Amino acid sequence: MDKYEKVFELAKRRGFLWNSFELYGGSRGFYDYGPLGSTLKRRIEQIWREFYVIQEGHMEIECPTIGIEDVFIASGHVGGFSDPLCECKNCGEAFRADHLVENIMAAAGTLSAEQLTQVIKEKGITCPECGGELNDAYEFNLMFKTTIGPGTGRKGYLRPETAQGMFVDFQRLSRFYRDKLPFGAVQIGKSYRNEIAPRQGVIRLREFTQAECEIFTDPRNKKHPDFERFADSELTLYSQEAQQKGEAFRTTVREAVEKGIIAHEMLGYNIALTNEFLTKVGIDPARLRFRQHLKDEMAHYAIDCWDAEIATDRFGWVEIVGIADRTDYDLKAHSRVSKTDLYVYVEYDEPKMLTRFVVKPNMGKLGPLFKGKAKAVADALKQLSEEELSKSQIKVTVDGEELTVSSDVVDFAEETVKVSGENVIPHVIEPSYGIDRIFYGIMEHAFDEEKLAQKAAESGLKVEENEEKADKGPEAAKDENEGEGEEETRLVMHFSSAIAPVQVAVLPLLTRKELADPAKEILLRLREKRLLVSYDDSGTIGRRYRRNDEIGTPYSVTVDYDTLQDGTVTIRDRDSMRQVRAPIKGIENVLYELIYRGRDFESAGKPFNF
Amino acid sequence: MDKYEKVFELAKRRGFLWNSFELYGGSRGFYDYGPLGSTLKRRIEQIWREFYVIQEGHMEIECPTIGIEDVFIASGHVGGFSDPLCECKNCGEAFRADHLVENIMAAAGTLSAEQLTQVIKEKGITCPECGGELNDAYEFNLMFKTTIGPGTGRKGYLRPETAQGMFVDFQRLSRFYRDKLPFGAVQIGKSYRNEIAPRQGVIRLREFTQAECEIFTDPRNKKHPDFERFADSELTLYSQEAQQKGEAFRTTVREAVEKGIIAHEMLGYNIALTNEFLTKVGIDPARLRFRQHLKDEMAHYAIDCWDAEIATDRFGWVEIVGIADRTDYDLKAHSRVSKTDLYVYVEYDEPKMLTRFVVKPNMGKLGPLFKGKAKAVADALKQLSEEELSKSQIKVTVDGEELTVSSDVVDFAEETVKVSGENVIPHVIEPSYGIDRIFYGIMEHAFDEEKLAQKAAESGLKVEENEEKADKGPEAAKDENEGEGEEETRLVMHFSSAIAPVQVAVLPLLTRKELADPAKEILLRLREKRLLVSYDDSGTIGRRYRRNDEIGTPYSVTVDYDTLQDGTVTIRDRDSMRQVRAPIKGIENVLYELIYRGRDFESAGKPFNF
Repeated sequence: MDKYEKVFELAKRRGFLWNSFELYGGSRGFYDYGPLGSTLKRRIEQIWREFYVIQEGHMEIECPTIGIEDVFIASGHVGGFSDPLCECKNCGEAFRADHLVENIMAAAGTLSAEQLTQVIKEKGITCPECGGELNDAYEFNLMFKTTIGPGTGRKGYLRPETAQGMFVDFQRLSRFYRDKLPFGAVQIGKSYRNEIAPRQGVIRLREFTQAECEIFTDPRNKKHPDFERFADSELTLYSQEAQQKGEAFRTTVREAVEKGIIAHEMLGYNIALTNEFLTKVGIDPARLRFRQHLKDEMAHYAIDCWDAEIATDRFGWVEIVGIADRTDYDLKAHSRVSKTDLYVYVEYDEPKMLTRFVVKPNMGKLGPLFKGKAKAVADALKQLSEEELSKSQIKVTVDGEELTVSSDVVDFAEETVKVSGENVIPHVIEPSYGIDRIFYGIMEHAFDEEKLAQKAAESGLKVEENEEKADKGPEAAKDENEGEGEEETRLVMHFSSAIAPVQVAVLPLLTRKELADPAKEILLRLREKRLLVSYDDSGTIGRRYRRNDEIGTPYSVTVDYDTLQDGTVTIRDRDSMRQVRAPIKGIENVLYELIYRGRDFESAGKPFNF
Repeated sequence: MDKYEKVFELAKRRGFLWNSFELYGGSRGFYDYGPLGSTLKRRIEQIWREFYVIQEGHMEIECPTIGIEDVFIASGHVGGFSDPLCECKNCGEAFRADHLVENIMAAAGTLSAEQLTQVIKEKGITCPECGGELNDAYEFNLMFKTTIGPGTGRKGYLRPETAQGMFVDFQRLSRFYRDKLPFGAVQIGKSYRNEIAPRQGVIRLREFTQAECEIFTDPRNKKHPDFERFADSELTLYSQEAQQKGEAFRTTVREAVEKGIIAHEMLGYNIALTNEFLTKVGIDPARLRFRQHLKDEMAHYAIDCWDAEIATDRFGWVEIVGIADRTDYDLKAHSRVSKTDLYVYVEYDEPKMLTRFVVKPNMGKLGPLFKGKAKAVADALKQLSEEELSKSQIKVTVDGEELTVSSDVVDFAEETVKVSGENVIPHVIEPSYGIDRIFYGIMEHAFDEEKLAQKAAESGLKVEENEEKADKGPEAAKDENEGEGEEETRLVMHFSSAIAPVQVAVLPLLTRKELADPAKEILLRLREKRLLVSYDDSGTIGRRYRRNDEIGTPYSVTVDYDTLQDGTVTIRDRDSMRQVRAPIKGIENVLYELIYRGRDFESAGKPFNF
């Protein structure tokens, strides 16, 4: 089993991730979040909201997942959101044509369907499943299609990204923010990609959750007002240049922007913000880097684009966030298709006095020369550009007739006008997060198999498993994979308290009322502190510790007969497996401080080991 | 303008609800939640989670919105989720056939497409749009269809309800809960209904948010362990009997269950829980009732079903929640289609000794009679039922040959066996919430137009608008509909603090630094208390109060020049429009208590009126 399989085995067994429609044999590219997975995912989303909505002030909106065709014509998805598809004439299996040839040539991803077809024919590539002959490759649009309303109705698509909602609502948003740039809006929700043949588990889903932020920015000023906040943060960058050498490097945001590695402060700030978010939710900083798009992979309109990538055991470096300066591409595209100007009128701090070169037709001279047409000639002169007026013989067209006016019968002047602002099409800075991939990254980076004997030697602990071995009741068989065979290792998820789906497990030593009552009392007090708490009274204490290690519960509280004697309970720390004895009184504050205030575990009570 | 229009005008203008795809002319049945709407909706969902996930312990899961065909064959949606559709031969417009005839006959909703076609022809009904002739009515399936993967691929549907996710995951969930009934699971997410012609705004959406809970219950015991919690709660019930009289009545949950009006405690408890939730989020209890499904509208398999209905101005009574006992219908349906037994093995508290009537074939007598077939006859006898064995001439079939065995050659006995449990197919109790309708209900029930002169007379306040009138700067024109024309009324949303999208507005009297600094300090301290706070320094104070009344901000804090003198600020109460002066020190605690602890406003500071 590689690590992906191990993580997945635990994820399924413990209720993090399940194959969707398992009862009906499943369907590739779809996963269910089980009870613990759903809680973990919501906590990730909640922290994302704290970063983007509360801290940064980019308000959240919620648009439909079904979109009408116009939107995706404008966005380019109807025309260009496709993968090259190749089907087997014999067994009908579908393949990504570029994947079929990627072992033969490096740049498979850049070839057209026609070119791919040619390579497949030349190299005699056949169906990897049955060896059959392959059809010609063609571009397959990756949007799920549907129909809105009855009959042929109206074409609808499941959105391939949430971003379009913010673009389509641009005018409403701009108004909401009283036309003050920069302003941003976010969406967290489902997006869809009808993958040809998804074969990478949760890394490539047909239905997935995105958290996207569109920051509408004044193109004339991409400095960030709070840049200093992150200026000295260190990042691991894998810039275009670094990719040529094949080596990422550490640098501060300030240096990267000053040296022009990152295009400007707005991007630098947002890359640093992403770095902080990912670290906070539990991505291992040592397995995280920011890779700049190469010139030939960047969209033609983009100024700069960086992907947050994480190292995974099976898939190598995987993109989990993209941060791009998309310029005014999206707004202009929607302007064109909707035939509506999309801009923000930006008032100057103070009105500007602008000097313009203007023509003052001299009617006294034009009248005799052009008679009844004199007025029309004067109007035509006013329409001309400065360049046209600068000639000695000025040409104007009146009623289709070209007339020549000598510059000496025309007066010129400079005129000063007051201009109080101008229309600006904002540029869009877009951080775009793939929540499911982040979820998986957190799982893999939190996952550990620890050799208990070694751990015990290091920490001077008794090995909990000894007790476990001695105590296999009839329940043991029921809870498959628990403590079976591999007693010398423990599976543990080192989730940070910020995202653990259960923060504290309350464990009465036995199900008896005299222990259950104080345990339930503790449960209620922890819940009042808004901690995520579970109550678990099934199986031996050792088994329950193992279970909570596997779901990543940072702290367990055990109520035993000593509790009834001296009013203390055992607090166990998941990572060190150390235990302290602390008074039941105020236990909720101790745990709150351990979880949210970084309180040192050893200070939580008297060291204790059973 | 009726109230719906008034609420909608405010909702659009203030960023609660926007027409989706407005830039492209919109699309019926789709709405966007703007920044304030999205916040309000999330708060409703969050409180729902507090009720169902945290309090009730029904864990949340998250399944895809796209489903494969098998799921909806089992659920009955492929076969039976449709409305009768009728199209105009001339203009092509589509109509609900039952809506076309509902003015002519009462029971239009119960007619088949064929019957509707006949009525339309007999009565000469024509297209309401153009007067054209109508096509024959037919059943139109309301699921959005799509294709999963390339080619003809695999049929997919956008789920019409979230509930199927819990049924399909039943085995995984049962295992997660260690097979202990009752257990429940919930989902909050998008569902879809491809309405033929949605004409009721947010009341009938093509894409909507559901919050559904499936509680898997032991069919032999529908008592609720916590029934006493709500037993004495009062509900407004509109039972089957009450509907005959046309009058709802008030009663306690206990009485309703005891009298058999509500089928059992599990349903009674869940109806009361719904009542508490709806009241908490701001549905007016006086405009809320629980209506029991009539016998002919209830699904054939359901034991009992109640809808929470709210009174609305335009649409009358509108269903917002359904609470049903769906029995084992769903699990049996999925068992049938998936060919998988779905049940929970329930262990008895103690193994039961069961006495069974068994046959003990007497080989000594059967041998001589049936020779080589004697063994086969004995086996056949063991398969017979008690009834078949009770005859004096017992008939058995051996190798297709019918043989008769006289009862006197057979011995009978009673046998006692130890049975430690049995397989149970749980019954499902389902509370199903329509979040968008609840959202709209809250908006309409919170909406008020107050005559200020009258309010001032009642409360002895100065009319704030006087100040407003005197102070119309150039900004006034920008913020349309604000303080324009209708100075004598104020629009106010009386949101409860629990769901208001902004809980406190911090308002520096002027934008000057000496006032902005302490205002921003207050803002930060309120945010640390995790209150939803806005900072608003644009326009006059009167205008800002109006704006905050319209978005339902319960409290405003104003920083003025007196603040710099004596360290106090003004707190304004939205509903009473009364003001108190309170020290800036500890202001965050005062507001927290006003919002979450029900502290009396008058106790918050010294009464003050400008």
